[in-house]
Amino acid sequence: GSELLATERAKSDITVERLSQLLYTQEVLDRKKKIINVLKSEKVFDKSQNYFSGRIDRFETALARAKKLRNLRVKHEWNLDEYRTASEAISEPGPYGLHDSMFLITIAEQGTPEQHAQFLVKAEEYKFIGCYAQTELGHGSNVRGLETTATWNLEDKTFIIHSPYLTASKWWIGSLGKTANYAVVMAQLFIAGKSYGPHPFVVQIRDLKTHEPLENVHVGDIGPKFGYNTMDNGFLLFNKVKVPHISMLARFSRVDLDTNQYVREGSPSLVYGTLTWVRSTIVMQAGSVLARGVTIATRYCAVRRQFQDRDAPASEPGENQVLNYTMVQIRLLPLLAATFALHFTGKSMMNLYSENQKKMNAGEAKDNGRGAGPEEIQSGSDILADLHATSCGLKAYSSTIAAEGLEVCRRACGGHGYSSFSGIGPWYADYLPTTTWEGDNYMLTQQVARYLLKSARSVLSSSAPSNDTTSILSTFLSRSEIGCAFDVLGSDSDLVDAFAWRTAFLTFEALKHRDEQKKAWNDLLVDFYRLSKAHSQYMVVRNFYEALQSGETRAQIDDSTLDVLTKLFRLFALNTLEQEGSEFYASGAVTVKQISLARTNTVMKLLEEIRPHAVRLVDSWAFDDWVLDSSLGRQDGKVYEDMFYRASELNPLNSITVDPYPDSEVLFKKDDRRRSKL
Amino acid sequence: GSELLATERAKSDITVERLSQLLYTQEVLDRKKKIINVLKSEKVFDKSQNYFSGRIDRFETALARAKKLRNLRVKHEWNLDEYRTASEAISEPGPYGLHDSMFLITIAEQGTPEQHAQFLVKAEEYKFIGCYAQTELGHGSNVRGLETTATWNLEDKTFIIHSPYLTASKWWIGSLGKTANYAVVMAQLFIAGKSYGPHPFVVQIRDLKTHEPLENVHVGDIGPKFGYNTMDNGFLLFNKVKVPHISMLARFSRVDLDTNQYVREGSPSLVYGTLTWVRSTIVMQAGSVLARGVTIATRYCAVRRQFQDRDAPASEPGENQVLNYTMVQIRLLPLLAATFALHFTGKSMMNLYSENQKKMNAGEAKDNGRGAGPEEIQSGSDILADLHATSCGLKAYSSTIAAEGLEVCRRACGGHGYSSFSGIGPWYADYLPTTTWEGDNYMLTQQVARYLLKSARSVLSSSAPSNDTTSILSTFLSRSEIGCAFDVLGSDSDLVDAFAWRTAFLTFEALKHRDEQKKAWNDLLVDFYRLSKAHSQYMVVRNFYEALQSGETRAQIDDSTLDVLTKLFRLFALNTLEQEGSEFYASGAVTVKQISLARTNTVMKLLEEIRPHAVRLVDSWAFDDWVLDSSLGRQDGKVYEDMFYRASELNPLNSITVDPYPDSEVLFKKDDRRRSKL
Ligand SMILES: Cc1cc2nc3c(=O)[nH]c(=O)nc-3n(C[C@H](O)[C@H](O)[C@H](O)COP(=O)(O)OP(=O)(O)OC[C@H]3O[C@@H](n4cnc5c(N)ncnc54)[C@H](O)[C@@H]3O)c2cc1C
Ligand SMILES: Cc1cc2nc3c(=O)[nH]c(=O)nc-3n(C[C@H](O)[C@H](O)[C@H](O)COP(=O)(O)OP(=O)(O)OC[C@H]3O[C@@H](n4cnc5c(N)ncnc54)[C@H](O)[C@@H]3O)c2cc1C
Repeated sequence: GSELLATERAKSDITVERLSQLLYTQEVLDRKKKIINVLKSEKVFDKSQNYFSGRIDRFETALARAKKLRNLRVKHEWNLDEYRTASEAISEPGPYGLHDSMFLITIAEQGTPEQHAQFLVKAEEYKFIGCYAQTELGHGSNVRGLETTATWNLEDKTFIIHSPYLTASKWWIGSLGKTANYAVVMAQLFIAGKSYGPHPFVVQIRDLKTHEPLENVHVGDIGPKFGYNTMDNGFLLFNKVKVPHISMLARFSRVDLDTNQYVREGSPSLVYGTLTWVRSTIVMQAGSVLARGVTIATRYCAVRRQFQDRDAPASEPGENQVLNYTMVQIRLLPLLAATFALHFTGKSMMNLYSENQKKMNAGEAKDNGRGAGPEEIQSGSDILADLHATSCGLKAYSSTIAAEGLEVCRRACGGHGYSSFSGIGPWYADYLPTTTWEGDNYMLTQQVARYLLKSARSVLSSSAPSNDTTSILSTFLSRSEIGCAFDVLGSDSDLVDAFAWRTAFLTFEALKHRDEQKKAWNDLLVDFYRLSKAHSQYMVVRNFYEALQSGETRAQIDDSTLDVLTKLFRLFALNTLEQEGSEFYASGAVTVKQISLARTNTVMKLLEEIRPHAVRLVDSWAFDDWVLDSSLGRQDGKVYEDMFYRASELNPLNSITVDPYPDSEVLFKKDDRRRSKL
Repeated sequence: GSELLATERAKSDITVERLSQLLYTQEVLDRKKKIINVLKSEKVFDKSQNYFSGRIDRFETALARAKKLRNLRVKHEWNLDEYRTASEAISEPGPYGLHDSMFLITIAEQGTPEQHAQFLVKAEEYKFIGCYAQTELGHGSNVRGLETTATWNLEDKTFIIHSPYLTASKWWIGSLGKTANYAVVMAQLFIAGKSYGPHPFVVQIRDLKTHEPLENVHVGDIGPKFGYNTMDNGFLLFNKVKVPHISMLARFSRVDLDTNQYVREGSPSLVYGTLTWVRSTIVMQAGSVLARGVTIATRYCAVRRQFQDRDAPASEPGENQVLNYTMVQIRLLPLLAATFALHFTGKSMMNLYSENQKKMNAGEAKDNGRGAGPEEIQSGSDILADLHATSCGLKAYSSTIAAEGLEVCRRACGGHGYSSFSGIGPWYADYLPTTTWEGDNYMLTQQVARYLLKSARSVLSSSAPSNDTTSILSTFLSRSEIGCAFDVLGSDSDLVDAFAWRTAFLTFEALKHRDEQKKAWNDLLVDFYRLSKAHSQYMVVRNFYEALQSGETRAQIDDSTLDVLTKLFRLFALNTLEQEGSEFYASGAVTVKQISLARTNTVMKLLEEIRPHAVRLVDSWAFDDWVLDSSLGRQDGKVYEDMFYRASELNPLNSITVDPYPDSEVLFKKDDRRRSKL
């Protein structure tokens, strides 16, 4: 194993350190190293039993780790970034997960100063431990359909929180099952019999001393899941529980204590911005989530040997590294390319978002003072609208690629991929909900399509705001008579343009179906899904391209690394183009000949050219072995030794001797396990 | 839930019972019912803790179940079919799994009568409990690369079994980890320093009394896996273990006791036949494996409501069943079609195989007597060769569809699909290795391509045997000048022919690359993969079509059911055609216009027409609720009640109260679990 990886590393001249710096910055790399060293020295973070333990033991350990992490944060005065780095290195969801994120954020963003004083302070001290309870047994995606009610009580100025049906039970709520004593509860607000839609309430659910559920609160864990078993996702039913007026988070809307009227205050566009931000982080994370699987599979496939090459010269009698088989390369190398593509895309979206926020804040500030020009505000919110739609599509596309890509990586490892020690399966299982939460990936595509249709209409009526989307639509329209001729195999910028062309083509097709042929919305969902995918693929291809063109990038890495990254860009783009061949062809962006050449020549050639750099490329993702926790993905290639060690030394089942005969009722005739608890 | 499913069932006139009979026969349905009733009455088969238990508890329970099952078999005098039905209903791999299958089969098929007397009798009585130890830590697919040696010892006429390296350790061996006391071990035979390749040896590995490993045998469980955790897959190392001459299974080759010579006896084509048979059963099983997921998702999506339809008339204010969304239909209904397509394909292959075996046996018998005509033997083995290649491709294709389809079903259930109670995730995790074992799905495609290339060469040189493969290749050649014009949207038989055309086209393309352009084998693997997929899709489409045309089928079901099945055939075929659009177009089998019409019109229309029958169609797969073990897939639609019951009543984590505060070291402050052991 070791020699094979050493040989691999010697074959490539990629400068791993500089590429790592480009991906993370040196500051982040240093931070990771520092934090991981702290974690490794704490017994509670020892990972050796992770893959063996059952649900309850895993949860118990996760709780111990969450506590320790919090204490380490205090002790070492870690800032939020450092704390997050530590959580990431532990690589499992923990019982404070939703407290640390949605609970704190929601109160901070949607609470008034008075509510901050009452809830936020204690929450930050972990006296209140919270969760975010929106989804119910009967409703998830459709938030307006939630059934939990919060009825305003004129007489004593309280709200009554109630779950009128079983399906109104909160469900899936992270950190609620066992850990939380508080919850932000989304409930339908009723005042004087009138419904005002779902609003957030801060509700105590467990006693702060005994930790038993409060009266009329029925709460518990929802049971085992495909993954995420270190987290206590919970259920929650209220039987007419009274809470005071201050419980309703009142920054954007409130019930007036004197008039009992519903009052809307300011705009919750901030919240809408937060969603966009969260989705952008999912895009960027998708790159590194996938990179773990690609790292493991690439290293293992460089160590794994199986069969002699059929056409190998007699002078090379040894078995072939399976990474040399083109059928393995075509599965792994486009995913390797995708890790970079997604990373650069997410990063650029986050930058765009931050810049725009600054601009808008500046605009708002001016507005408060002496009134800003209308264009100025408009331009900021146009970009936000564009970013919002883009982020929906990209969240769906990137998390799908990452989730499905991980399974491709797992399968590429053959039988050993199925072992938990591969480290891919458990990671995949924990990541999978990302395709469903923060907007179900299939449903999000409707939002993208809606936005693209709207943009197309505005382009047609010449009332379009100016942003990238309207510009590719206008270009398409202006050239639709003369057509296009993209040199996708010869020019990288033409390749990007071909993706833009296809998106624009599909947008106007969809518009025709909806506006001219008056097709029902439901009949177009499949087209919308494809449209959104096409648009997201365009975005990723463009962002990857631009990242490689940028002076900043070029200043940071040397030419040969840039050259390999450019090949990865081409591989990603051409392989995608080839897979979506029909659409590209139908749009007129490419010819059948080009598609077929892409497949049989260009892509195969790129695989061959990238192959020698594969191990160094994954090295540049810089995963610490302790973080990967994978026998197959070890940096030193000692795959078999590690598999064997874990199976024979760490495996508690091997302390047991069974009675194997059907006529004996004894099952375990000897059990030498010593339940070593933390 | 209940009313919604009742309404669904009222909407369709499919006769569920007759369709079930067509799928299974009444005899099998009765058998299932009878067996399941027996199992349900035994406490050890109670499934209620399955999803909660950790690895060791699950294994312990699985061992108890395996024993009970064996005892029930004896008590009720079940035949093999009945025993298998029972195992299937339990729906988890068990510790006798490899004993019952590969261990017994290998000894029966490859052993001499003397060896049967020595090993088989005791094995059938469960005195010897065995496994099949082929794969090693370092080698799986490449059987010739195995490193375990069996060296013939001239002096004392024994074999020495030895594992010279760590990578020679047997690995992944089902039933070996804890249960087996015997193993069929594949080892490289060495006689007088010369290697004769891998051969099977029957080797005792544990003491029959103490069940401790024998001296110089290092054996144990390989640890947790993505699924399959009720099975004790094991490792096994030998340190120069002596075994007697009788240990080598000697039906086809042996070491002569007197001469010490290697003797090959008869032909192991039987074994080759067995592989074909096993792969055919995988194809047929893939249909019902997938049908479980489709049943669960279809029923749940008929019960789940989310959002109002955007275009719904004001008179229909309720929320929409998510099964009404075309984006849900396009995910589920083609898979529903695939369940039938795979079922009929597997069944027809198994029939063909059995008929051919009869013919060949008859031929052999005649041969022994008075010599059969050469065509007669030839035709049998030609068909076997064709079946063998076909079965490789279909095994890969069908298990990929089933595995990936299950994940599509899981995701279609939104958040609740992620709960173990959905019943899809655990089932998927257990099924997944089918894509890797019995021939890795990616590698098998090389065998299909090799066969197709060979067939194409023989067609070109007019020396072709006559079978379906050569006939579609000949047809293509004879028409390659004039081209084709398939009415894929109007004629079902043209649709089948278009699939044949594409396969033939790709075959001759690949042949050109290999024979004319002399491309390296490795450079063609991706093309071969596509070729094999194309060929398998053709086979499935053809078999589904023929099953619906057959008089037998038509006699068994009524016209309206046949009509719906025909629509499922079209949906499967056209949806596949559309997804592989580029290839169909490139082959000249269809026009771009046809592909685009298929997608936007025909497929969408078929979804609409099949939709009302969806629930009855899955009902016809006739899964007992106890077998499905799924909250979401319940026949009565009581989805939410069951989710809630399992979470709040069965979930052991809810007997625990934690201390949630980071400044306390206490984790579980109360633990009311009573470890209820069997
Ligand atoms: C591990 C995990 C942790 C979670 N943590 C939390 C948490 O802490 N707090 C919280 O509030 N929630 C949480 N959730 C819930 C999560 O946000 C929801 O599951 C998610 O929003 C999906 O909603 P749903 O389950 O209702 O899916 P559904 O909307 O019921 O989807 C079911 C199916 O219908 C389809 N569908 C639905 N509507 C449409 C439509 N209009 N058009 C086309 N197709 C449609 C979907 O694509 C899907 O296939 C968690 C979920 C998971 C799995
Ligand atoms: C749950 C489970 C149970 C099992 N039970 C048993 C058992 O009871 N007894 C037993 O003997 N075995 C058992 N096995 C082992 C199983 O048969 C092997 O894992 C399987 O044959 C795959 O071999 P491998 O793991 O060596 O994969 P590898 O051959 O190492 O494959 C690794 C990768 O290389 C690729 N590859 C390899 N060779 C080539 C090539 N020539 N061309 C192109 N690509 C190539 C593969 O596609 C794959 O992506 C079991 C496995 C599992 C997962």
